Amino acid sequence: MTPDLLTFGEAMVSMRSAGPLATGTPLSMHLAGAESNVAIGVARLGHRAAWVGRVSTDEFGEYVLRQLRAEGVGVDGVSRDAERQTGLMFLEQRSADLTRVQYYRAGSAGSALRVDDLRAPLAAGARMLHLTGITPALSDTAREVTCWAAETADAAGIPICLDVNYRARLWSREAAREVLTPLAAHASTIIASADELDLVGDPGADEPAVAAELLRRGVETVLVKLGADGARAYTVDGVEEVGVVSVTAVDTVGAGDAFTAGYLSGWFDGLDLTGRLRRAATLGAFAVSTRGDCEGLPRRAELALLDGHEAGSVLR
Amino acid sequence: MTPDLLTFGEAMVSMRSAGPLATGTPLSMHLAGAESNVAIGVARLGHRAAWVGRVSTDEFGEYVLRQLRAEGVGVDGVSRDAERQTGLMFLEQRSADLTRVQYYRAGSAGSALRVDDLRAPLAAGARMLHLTGITPALSDTAREVTCWAAETADAAGIPICLDVNYRARLWSREAAREVLTPLAAHASTIIASADELDLVGDPGADEPAVAAELLRRGVETVLVKLGADGARAYTVDGVEEVGVVSVTAVDTVGAGDAFTAGYLSGWFDGLDLTGRLRRAATLGAFAVSTRGDCEGLPRRAELALLDGHEAGSVLR
Amino acid sequence: MTPDLLTFGEAMVSMRSAGPLATGTPLSMHLAGAESNVAIGVARLGHRAAWVGRVSTDEFGEYVLRQLRAEGVGVDGVSRDAERQTGLMFLEQRSADLTRVQYYRAGSAGSALRVDDLRAPLAAGARMLHLTGITPALSDTAREVTCWAAETADAAGIPICLDVNYRARLWSREAAREVLTPLAAHASTIIASADELDLVGDPGADEPAVAAELLRRGVETVLVKLGADGARAYTVDGVEEVGVVSVTAVDTVGAGDAFTAGYLSGWFDGLDLTGRLRRAATLGAFAVSTRGDCEGLPRRAELALLDGHEAGSVLR
Amino acid sequence: MTPDLLTFGEAMVSMRSAGPLATGTPLSMHLAGAESNVAIGVARLGHRAAWVGRVSTDEFGEYVLRQLRAEGVGVDGVSRDAERQTGLMFLEQRSADLTRVQYYRAGSAGSALRVDDLRAPLAAGARMLHLTGITPALSDTAREVTCWAAETADAAGIPICLDVNYRARLWSREAAREVLTPLAAHASTIIASADELDLVGDPGADEPAVAAELLRRGVETVLVKLGADGARAYTVDGVEEVGVVSVTAVDTVGAGDAFTAGYLSGWFDGLDLTGRLRRAATLGAFAVSTRGDCEGLPRRAELALLDGHEAGSVLR
Amino acid sequence: MTPDLLTFGEAMVSMRSAGPLATGTPLSMHLAGAESNVAIGVARLGHRAAWVGRVSTDEFGEYVLRQLRAEGVGVDGVSRDAERQTGLMFLEQRSADLTRVQYYRAGSAGSALRVDDLRAPLAAGARMLHLTGITPALSDTAREVTCWAAETADAAGIPICLDVNYRARLWSREAAREVLTPLAAHASTIIASADELDLVGDPGADEPAVAAELLRRGVETVLVKLGADGARAYTVDGVEEVGVVSVTAVDTVGAGDAFTAGYLSGWFDGLDLTGRLRRAATLGAFAVSTRGDCEGLPRRAELALLDGHEAGSVLR
Amino acid sequence: MTPDLLTFGEAMVSMRSAGPLATGTPLSMHLAGAESNVAIGVARLGHRAAWVGRVSTDEFGEYVLRQLRAEGVGVDGVSRDAERQTGLMFLEQRSADLTRVQYYRAGSAGSALRVDDLRAPLAAGARMLHLTGITPALSDTAREVTCWAAETADAAGIPICLDVNYRARLWSREAAREVLTPLAAHASTIIASADELDLVGDPGADEPAVAAELLRRGVETVLVKLGADGARAYTVDGVEEVGVVSVTAVDTVGAGDAFTAGYLSGWFDGLDLTGRLRRAATLGAFAVSTRGDCEGLPRRAELALLDGHEAGSVLR
Repeated sequence: MTPDLLTFGEAMVSMRSAGPLATGTPLSMHLAGAESNVAIGVARLGHRAAWVGRVSTDEFGEYVLRQLRAEGVGVDGVSRDAERQTGLMFLEQRSADLTRVQYYRAGSAGSALRVDDLRAPLAAGARMLHLTGITPALSDTAREVTCWAAETADAAGIPICLDVNYRARLWSREAAREVLTPLAAHASTIIASADELDLVGDPGADEPAVAAELLRRGVETVLVKLGADGARAYTVDGVEEVGVVSVTAVDTVGAGDAFTAGYLSGWFDGLDLTGRLRRAATLGAFAVSTRGDCEGLPRRAELALLDGHEAGSVLR
Repeated sequence: MTPDLLTFGEAMVSMRSAGPLATGTPLSMHLAGAESNVAIGVARLGHRAAWVGRVSTDEFGEYVLRQLRAEGVGVDGVSRDAERQTGLMFLEQRSADLTRVQYYRAGSAGSALRVDDLRAPLAAGARMLHLTGITPALSDTAREVTCWAAETADAAGIPICLDVNYRARLWSREAAREVLTPLAAHASTIIASADELDLVGDPGADEPAVAAELLRRGVETVLVKLGADGARAYTVDGVEEVGVVSVTAVDTVGAGDAFTAGYLSGWFDGLDLTGRLRRAATLGAFAVSTRGDCEGLPRRAELALLDGHEAGSVLR
Repeated sequence: MTPDLLTFGEAMVSMRSAGPLATGTPLSMHLAGAESNVAIGVARLGHRAAWVGRVSTDEFGEYVLRQLRAEGVGVDGVSRDAERQTGLMFLEQRSADLTRVQYYRAGSAGSALRVDDLRAPLAAGARMLHLTGITPALSDTAREVTCWAAETADAAGIPICLDVNYRARLWSREAAREVLTPLAAHASTIIASADELDLVGDPGADEPAVAAELLRRGVETVLVKLGADGARAYTVDGVEEVGVVSVTAVDTVGAGDAFTAGYLSGWFDGLDLTGRLRRAATLGAFAVSTRGDCEGLPRRAELALLDGHEAGSVLR
Repeated sequence: MTPDLLTFGEAMVSMRSAGPLATGTPLSMHLAGAESNVAIGVARLGHRAAWVGRVSTDEFGEYVLRQLRAEGVGVDGVSRDAERQTGLMFLEQRSADLTRVQYYRAGSAGSALRVDDLRAPLAAGARMLHLTGITPALSDTAREVTCWAAETADAAGIPICLDVNYRARLWSREAAREVLTPLAAHASTIIASADELDLVGDPGADEPAVAAELLRRGVETVLVKLGADGARAYTVDGVEEVGVVSVTAVDTVGAGDAFTAGYLSGWFDGLDLTGRLRRAATLGAFAVSTRGDCEGLPRRAELALLDGHEAGSVLR
Repeated sequence: MTPDLLTFGEAMVSMRSAGPLATGTPLSMHLAGAESNVAIGVARLGHRAAWVGRVSTDEFGEYVLRQLRAEGVGVDGVSRDAERQTGLMFLEQRSADLTRVQYYRAGSAGSALRVDDLRAPLAAGARMLHLTGITPALSDTAREVTCWAAETADAAGIPICLDVNYRARLWSREAAREVLTPLAAHASTIIASADELDLVGDPGADEPAVAAELLRRGVETVLVKLGADGARAYTVDGVEEVGVVSVTAVDTVGAGDAFTAGYLSGWFDGLDLTGRLRRAATLGAFAVSTRGDCEGLPRRAELALLDGHEAGSVLR
Repeated sequence: MTPDLLTFGEAMVSMRSAGPLATGTPLSMHLAGAESNVAIGVARLGHRAAWVGRVSTDEFGEYVLRQLRAEGVGVDGVSRDAERQTGLMFLEQRSADLTRVQYYRAGSAGSALRVDDLRAPLAAGARMLHLTGITPALSDTAREVTCWAAETADAAGIPICLDVNYRARLWSREAAREVLTPLAAHASTIIASADELDLVGDPGADEPAVAAELLRRGVETVLVKLGADGARAYTVDGVEEVGVVSVTAVDTVGAGDAFTAGYLSGWFDGLDLTGRLRRAATLGAFAVSTRGDCEGLPRRAELALLDGHEAGSVLR
């Protein structure tokens, strides 16, 4: 059955510390990866989501697959890689306010993704293809996959959502801009934080100008994430803003992916822009008020649990 | 002050699981590394031990240094490496009887050890230099360090202890033999398990023949570790055996390093062969009856705690 | 020795999660039950409190009894039930702001309470009988017990405190009103949240009108709990308010029971209304600033620990 | 795609204690259910397994579904039940040698299974249908499903495996015998412990006589589980025995289900009886040497991990 | 109501480590104290047990009282001490086979017990008074209490049970002998391990001779605990032995107290010597197969749980 | 090599609870002690710090030494004490807002510090000697050490920093004043909270007057800690204030010591007063936003992690 969402990228094992790593601390295992987070967020809400990637045959690869299957994300298109290890990510709770990340992902199975891995899944179609700016930064082949996928989907009439997701550890802003700006031209939806707009538009232009230019190039919706101030959406109809849903924030990791998943879920449900933004804000609120990358994302019946929480107030 | 023991190699962070990795499990951090285990074992018994290695400047490197310092191991000769990460080791408790190991150590800081790192520490001297067959398997530079150290110490009259410690994941038996056999000629003490003797002697010869040949080549003592059957020592005076000290074994990781540390401690104390073997067996018993790579090793006042346990009975 | 407080109801085992149940989470065992919470709160302050209920002979029943005895609550009147299981309650920490409750209490030992179980304890007397609106919702026999107890105590001159405690999962507002309104006529003290007043008074009337009517019918004190705004007390002398004691709220479960226990403790100590309300607010503050249903309640010497905290500020 | 194995029954949440329940103890969540254990064991080895049952829409039901999906067990035929709760099982570690079980499963979603739930999955076919004697003991409708499935599969030429699995808490031996003896006539494989043979054969006959009678009635293989003594298989070709694989037993819960899964996996792989029994013994060994109902079951690549362990020795 | 058992002594908080203290380890709180262990063992079996001691008013003292009340042990005779702290005991799990104890009990509240504390409880009578050789070693006043209690009970016709329980850290064998030998003359039951008999009898005599002399002096039963070999009872009717009940031993702390509690319970039930010894062995088996000082002791309905375990085999 | 900082005092093991002690709670081990906290804070920033004290030879003493060595604090001057135990401190998390401390430190090894213990370390010199008002309160000999050290260092031209650190449990304000006021005359830096100024100056004078008088007596800098309001520094050049760095406070234990360590680190680095105060505020922020006495203190490379946090805002 054709999935609603098709996405691809690298899924890692995230090891979260309970305190500073230097003094020794227990670690807990979690699934990490921007694209798999979005797939899970969408799947929990009852949409069909498929994720494609290379997963090692080691025990951490088994862990990754178990988690994706548990969430009901389609993994039929996953390739197993017996020669590379699973990428790891250590998320250190240095203090109440400081988290630090360290990666062991160079040469990982996930970074070895290649065009052949995605051919069949993309040929099977989807209502939306979701890309992030992380995948093209992983390796040459991963960059090829991303560009090939954008072009192929665009040609096939599959709408594309691009989340810029700049990772300074993986590549420079210049290298990112060179890849992401052309990619953006294929997208119908672009999601970026305010300081990422220069990677998909004129670095010298301000936010409204970049958005306007993207709309002119055919993008339908430009979403600018504003952290505690919510988000702003640019379309040909103008600008719309949404605040955050007021909850107690305990973990901001994965909040952006939750926002994206909520937005896409609204799109699959045929909601108007206001409805899509509200769902995006609701999923973001679930994400930040639960520890873990995607553990807190709601099932459909749970969406109403935050109804009483006033939208628009500052997220603390 | 000149240390009693000087050793060098790679120290890693060992992450121990409480169950199968594939289903997700808590992990705890420990220090790992054959040479650092020996240094700790010797230091806990009150001898001066110095360890040399390259340690990353990341948080895991800080953890490694903290642990070594805590144990009173000299780390003045440690080099910090800001460009490479700390090697990791995952020790999975797959079932009550099965443990599995997975490494993330390729290109680690520890494997980048080079001759310059060891010059000053070795020039400062020591009563004994301890080498293992792991270090030369890590990288070209690490192999150079090992060979250079053996030759230099030998020329300077510093006795050398070599623990063969073959690691099949790091190199082939042939590659190991090519390096270790010449190394053995520099050693005064050689420690090996029964199935490692072919790496330091004629692969076609049996245990007594290999031992005899090593003694002929100038080695003073050849120690063959026999697991649950204890150990056998060959010297020019003949063969002597020691059984294991009877304890409840809960974790055999690090038992060989404990045995070595006990033997060397006896040597530093000037004990005769029987006394050295007994202390080796006692340290092995402490190691196997405590979880962790080196956490269970005794301080000097604790040696007597196992006095009541009959030596020579089968270790279960 | 005649107890100060006599109360009866169902005590359950509360299993609290550390996170979302759907992804699997550790659970910890706690004692739960509005009436037992009040008994514990009163007993910790040094008053004699007796609790009556049916407790299963299974291991969870043993747990319930152990906890009540540990707190010094009199359990001589407890009946053991070998044919029914202990009621369970799962308290899920869905996110930092959301807790959800699921019960396994249908047909429990506690719900099988009958008049015969209470005869002897009530005949022994008490300075105050405490009822809640939960017990009559459990079963036909439990409703009979509650009504019988109110009538019998009233006839015997034992003052009655009724905490409305409406539970929507157990019965409808209509069913509750039919039972609770007549019960209220026997009470000298009535405790309710603002949205529960319609269950003991004219649904069309506002708060002051309901309170006035209850006072006319013989109730001495009507306490309206206002959450973060504190509480309001109506007596023939007028209206008095108390704010909350400012603490860091981490768990609001049991806060109402703590408030009641504090009020009753003040009554047992002969405090005036102001003093009773202040102690009620203090116990509420202890309850919300500790995890658990009743673990945080203070012993008498601990009452002063919150003295520095300004009363009257908003409880967050 | 037609599954290799089709099975149905009740899946519960098993809450395992770390110590005696009466003194309070942490609990951990696990998936429980004889049929789902078998489905997981078969799926981990790479066969297609489908499980059918009624699963509550509450959070525990979500947990059950997540676990089954994570293991790759087909759940397309699962019915969701919004009116009943998930059955719970408490597995108390009373002492090192004593475990006790307490159920909260009366009226559970799982026990409400009915023929309509199984129609489509069974019509889709399978290489083997697996039944246990637990399901018909759950409720009238569950008994109907079991009998209907046996008759329907038999008529359709789908081989049936029946694991007697007598549960004294659910029904009497007489009631069980009345249902299970006719069921046995439909089975090609019958699995029972020695003291369960009277439920599928003449209570006055000894083991060989019961087995002979079952073979006469058309059963192809009768497997008698002997605990620490292994198992005995009766076929028309005679009797064959298998010992246990020697491992450290830490948890015997689920060992019988593991044995069944191993046997069926061998059958799917076309192994001869000896091969099927060996795989059964191997899976049993994995199960008893890991804590949990099914957590320890091996994937195909892991089967060889116990190769060094001598088969036939007594399991301790 | 007169208790079956009256006992007195020091109750401490035992902090148990999960590993070596020197490297830092989590600690868990438990109740410790030989006499309170016996009181709990007897109370769990349904007898009335009262414990007398001085308990600090600090939080650890509250913990002690909570635990005793939870177990249903009578604490009406307990004196609170606001000027001294609760005695602490650290139980270090140094390795799988080695536990070490460190005390912080000098000058504790418990050691300040004085005759006045025991007057009323002893005047109220009991069916049996239980003493241990620990209490007189705590302080001068504690020794006075013990001697006074023995004399007073003897004069009042209350049978006395004395468990020698020699503690080398508290006093010398000579000091102990001087106090315990006269005490023994008041006892009707004496319990000792084989190496403690010299403290209540002629140091030069062998076990049968010491037992014979004690019987001559009026002792009715002399119980000699033999560890893994069970126990031997001397009476005027001869010698009777009991083996241990075969279980998996995980913690021998408190095993002797469990043995005593089982013996006394049998005595309260009017069992013959064989029955008393069997119950003693059963309680010992429960104690050693559960972690904790007294957590594993059985309630009456649980006694049968070990029925299948063969008595008389060696305890491992 | 001469250390930058020399300090001395008592180091204890702090056992931190996860909840109220009275109901039983897990405990975790930490190192505690105002002077060792300062030494660790300074050592983490790369300065050479030496700590002197008496440390028991028991396991807790080993723990103390391991922690100090792990942090790179010089412990060559430590004396081991085989006759006294390590002082313990229980830090109870009574509620979210309330922590309580209970000590077992009377007669501890640490309190037995004597002049001879400090002679050699002080003779070796240091750039700064740090004293606290806790040490002279521990015992007669500890008071002698403190006074002797102040006089000796002063005479030798070693600048002295005195943190008043009044502990009401150890001595009265009068006793403290009698010792601390003369001590203050030797100090070049005095650190006190606002309510401790009367212990080093005229009790009737206000803060500016006390500071002025201290400056007149030769003190160079008087630092007044103001909690959530930051700190104020008095020098001959006037008054300078610093706010707190805005972080989420989760544990204020050790915050004062962190402030001192930051100030001294700035002094060792030759920073001006503003720079010293900023570093002091930064270290305080690290301390309060991490659980533990000193676990959260930064290494030099981590100082910048809080750069984004606005200094001067109120610490919550």
